[in-house]
Amino acid sequence: MPAFITLLTDFGSQDVYVGVMKGAIARIAPSAVVIDLTHDVAPQAVLAASFHLRSAYRYFPDGTVHVVVVDPGVGSQRRAIAVQMPQGYLVGPDNGVFSGVLADTTGLAAVELNNPVYWRSPQPSQTFHGRDVFAPVGAYLAKGTPFALLGTAIPVTTLKRLPAVDYQTTANGFGGSVQHIDRFGNLITSIPGKVLANQQWVAAFDILEIQAVQAYADRPAGRLVALVNSQGWLEIAVSQGSAQAELKAAVGDPVEVRLLD
Amino acid sequence: MPAFITLLTDFGSQDVYVGVMKGAIARIAPSAVVIDLTHDVAPQAVLAASFHLRSAYRYFPDGTVHVVVVDPGVGSQRRAIAVQMPQGYLVGPDNGVFSGVLADTTGLAAVELNNPVYWRSPQPSQTFHGRDVFAPVGAYLAKGTPFALLGTAIPVTTLKRLPAVDYQTTANGFGGSVQHIDRFGNLITSIPGKVLANQQWVAAFDILEIQAVQAYADRPAGRLVALVNSQGWLEIAVSQGSAQAELKAAVGDPVEVRLLD
Amino acid sequence: MPAFITLLTDFGSQDVYVGVMKGAIARIAPSAVVIDLTHDVAPQAVLAASFHLRSAYRYFPDGTVHVVVVDPGVGSQRRAIAVQMPQGYLVGPDNGVFSGVLADTTGLAAVELNNPVYWRSPQPSQTFHGRDVFAPVGAYLAKGTPFALLGTAIPVTTLKRLPAVDYQTTANGFGGSVQHIDRFGNLITSIPGKVLANQQWVAAFDILEIQAVQAYADRPAGRLVALVNSQGWLEIAVSQGSAQAELKAAVGDPVEVRLLD
Repeated sequence: MPAFITLLTDFGSQDVYVGVMKGAIARIAPSAVVIDLTHDVAPQAVLAASFHLRSAYRYFPDGTVHVVVVDPGVGSQRRAIAVQMPQGYLVGPDNGVFSGVLADTTGLAAVELNNPVYWRSPQPSQTFHGRDVFAPVGAYLAKGTPFALLGTAIPVTTLKRLPAVDYQTTANGFGGSVQHIDRFGNLITSIPGKVLANQQWVAAFDILEIQAVQAYADRPAGRLVALVNSQGWLEIAVSQGSAQAELKAAVGDPVEVRLLD
Repeated sequence: MPAFITLLTDFGSQDVYVGVMKGAIARIAPSAVVIDLTHDVAPQAVLAASFHLRSAYRYFPDGTVHVVVVDPGVGSQRRAIAVQMPQGYLVGPDNGVFSGVLADTTGLAAVELNNPVYWRSPQPSQTFHGRDVFAPVGAYLAKGTPFALLGTAIPVTTLKRLPAVDYQTTANGFGGSVQHIDRFGNLITSIPGKVLANQQWVAAFDILEIQAVQAYADRPAGRLVALVNSQGWLEIAVSQGSAQAELKAAVGDPVEVRLLD
Repeated sequence: MPAFITLLTDFGSQDVYVGVMKGAIARIAPSAVVIDLTHDVAPQAVLAASFHLRSAYRYFPDGTVHVVVVDPGVGSQRRAIAVQMPQGYLVGPDNGVFSGVLADTTGLAAVELNNPVYWRSPQPSQTFHGRDVFAPVGAYLAKGTPFALLGTAIPVTTLKRLPAVDYQTTANGFGGSVQHIDRFGNLITSIPGKVLANQQWVAAFDILEIQAVQAYADRPAGRLVALVNSQGWLEIAVSQGSAQAELKAAVGDPVEVRLLD
């Protein structure tokens, strides 16, 4: 079975930066299989990257190495880190990109990446650690290099964590916000579906109440729906349409859930 | 020789949905090679997906599994299906996405995907069958799982087929329409090149007559040309330019061919 | 160790053209690993493709085959070529797309691709040599086909080379221009960083002088910086922002470096 490495960056697709990272991996771990999560994170959008990784990491084989390069502090004193989880590894800058995954997982160990033996060269570029540090370290992990060799052990409690995009209990339900809007214009909120299990509820956005359904197709095309999505979040959508366009919604907009009797 | 799986969706590249499907495949068939056809089909554009798959499937190795997830009816009563062809497999919703390929092929068998043994879990999400049903089934096929185990056999005649984007014989030639506009602004029509073999002809768009050539470069940059393209369709293009921009053309616009004496 | 093939085209991601090239490769060299450099080169932008390949090729394993399809002259008399380098191969049209790499490398051999045994069919489409000639030839090279069998040897001196995007020595430093703007809005100039080694300098764009730094993060977010980037070029950037937006810059704009006594 090959080793898997995922890549998540803000590099976009118009440049060769992602391809170059894959070249750097291929030189070290030619048999590793590299899978793109997304490279269209907005430039320097660390919180969005954290959301994306949290949405994806659990669906990969055990041992998968997740390399994240959304790194506005590249070349500064921010640490480069790797994290060992029971189900795989994280590699990237210590700037909060792993906040979402760290909130979900236990049994972790962490190292600061300060052993240049596992970099592309002992003098990495000060602007592209993706190529010179993170991709090579990911490749060495995929190849079976022992985690502890990558650098100095650091307490997991010192890893940078961004404030969670959270939700609150209200008088008659829950309040949260839009944490991501996907390609379809679906509004993915910060309210976890598990608090709604076995209850009757409606969602509310601005002055609108939105009916709870199981699937988009439960209402006719063009109608607003609220449901617990495939990642387990409350989501507001338009059947065969865009809730973003219909509601002129943006990330951060408040969303409520009202429990019925 | 590895097994090949292609993916064709309307998921775009800004989210992790495609990456997550690849993770689900990797857990089941780690040695399968996954190739992206395109993920930029307009949301819910079933007919466009059908065109794209028909344009691509014949260029892959025998046994390739083509997974298509353009699925506005996910979670409704629309069937999930797999089709066995002499040269490979199709997996996706029974909503017409396979119409183009079905029009080209014979010797088919079909199953409704109702055996949860081959899903990611017996309780799939009602909003993401790509991850929970179609990618896993594709992975099991790539791994050699017998087709008949995936579900109940159904008659091929019951598969949903969209009305073909067709062409007609006219008084002095053929009439059709623009069925796709590609990245270059080339207008790919519904008129098959084979009806033009060994004949002299011109194409007509609106009030313009457009000269037939063999290659874009047969006319100077900026000039309109008509040719039989690499897929075998009549195409209207601008040499080193965009016919879409030049003609303000859209999918569905009528196109004619006039045979010369 | 698998063989690697990179792809660099102007095909974009909305069509299946890139996927079809990968299918054509898979039929010939199923074990080759294909890596995308970028497919978002502007249509027919040969010089930009040359820049991208030059930025990427050196990071891949020895023996990698780089297939470039930015080919406005497809179907004309422009030659189809392959080039053998000490560290790998180039395959594509002889229209200048390899200019950047050729400027960097010695020990080359070249062939005109006129042996149809290594094409997808002896009658290739006149509009899609990527599928019918370049991808198959790349696949055969990856499989170990001897270079000399691909066609007739041609002198390396006859390969088309575009005028270099160059720089000049000025009274007090160097003058060059913006040769590429990346996804972050960074302006990558034609002035090589090596001429600035061990010197004090500032960059100048229009009426602005811009301070030299080592890393983006050396100045606060929003401030202009000049540095030698990860490819070795002088680059003008905005820390956590876009120099393109800040300076309303475009490819070709003049840039200067002033040496400080």
